[in-house]
Amino acid sequence: MAENSTRTAYTVDSLLAVTVGVFNERGYDGTSMEDLSRAAGISKSSIYHHVRGKEELLKLAVGRALDALFGILAEPEALTGRSVDRLEHVVRRTAEVLLAELPYVTLLLRVRGNTATEQWALERRRDFDHQVAELLAAAVAAGELRADVEPRLATRLLFGMINSIVEWYRPGGKHADGVAEAVVHLAFDGLRA
Amino acid sequence: MAENSTRTAYTVDSLLAVTVGVFNERGYDGTSMEDLSRAAGISKSSIYHHVRGKEELLKLAVGRALDALFGILAEPEALTGRSVDRLEHVVRRTAEVLLAELPYVTLLLRVRGNTATEQWALERRRDFDHQVAELLAAAVAAGELRADVEPRLATRLLFGMINSIVEWYRPGGKHADGVAEAVVHLAFDGLRA
Repeated sequence: MAENSTRTAYTVDSLLAVTVGVFNERGYDGTSMEDLSRAAGISKSSIYHHVRGKEELLKLAVGRALDALFGILAEPEALTGRSVDRLEHVVRRTAEVLLAELPYVTLLLRVRGNTATEQWALERRRDFDHQVAELLAAAVAAGELRADVEPRLATRLLFGMINSIVEWYRPGGKHADGVAEAVVHLAFDGLRA
Repeated sequence: MAENSTRTAYTVDSLLAVTVGVFNERGYDGTSMEDLSRAAGISKSSIYHHVRGKEELLKLAVGRALDALFGILAEPEALTGRSVDRLEHVVRRTAEVLLAELPYVTLLLRVRGNTATEQWALERRRDFDHQVAELLAAAVAAGELRADVEPRLATRLLFGMINSIVEWYRPGGKHADGVAEAVVHLAFDGLRA
């Protein structure tokens, strides 16, 4: 089909790029297929040519964020070496993935609802957080991280800091380069000189 | 009036405690006076006896959070001493105020809209953040904080970490005691042992 189309040609990926913007703007619950059709400039039936419906678009969009995040845990630097160094790698890369996949991670972080897809996304997100918490606990047990902050609490504060970036970061903004590095500095060594 | 009432007697403060719960549950825009009347178990006209309407309730609720936050900046420990020590006091107390006034600060952090009250709240919140950013910049200038993280970025990450507490903290939860202390440890000295 795509070969025959002109400026309204969509792949699933480019349709997803439009969709994720609408979901983040109006909320998943507040978005209708009509809204997506209008934003994409194609008919609803053209959208149904690509996907079964709104929930499949949500699954593909948050799946993209989740795949990028879980991909971090499979990187060599996350798998070998001291726990603290593996954790530092994961923290830096999590911030980088958030910046690189900003609209997709933003959508993931806003998932709250009760559809099967939303429940699945919440569960995978908890699984990711849990794996990072375990890495952090291992680094504490190895004496590489301070023992006076409970690992689960430290993980929550760490993700609180990283995830808050979606609230203010705008692509191309003046903080672009230093954000992931600043997160690592603050998280591991603190602000004190 | 209150003297004559039985179990439905409300002061502005106790009415506010009910209201802030409903606002946080349904969103300010999604809450009607009817919803508030039902939640409080009193008639709408009884509510109008206390306040002019929904927007005044919002102003009183976020005002309570803002007064508590600005009160921190007026505490002796925030006004004298080294900049870094003043900042540490402000960070610890901000986390403590968030925990003590959880529903009110939660509501403040969710304000997004376009009413005069919401604009006023956003502006006062920005003013608070700005004053903390200036304290942080002063501590950097004095060589008390690391200079390789831009002060405005450091402030954003710091507030990102603190404000994220409203997403998971439940009063009486097992982290109750250590939260503000953990924030200070992480922010100033980092997680590294």
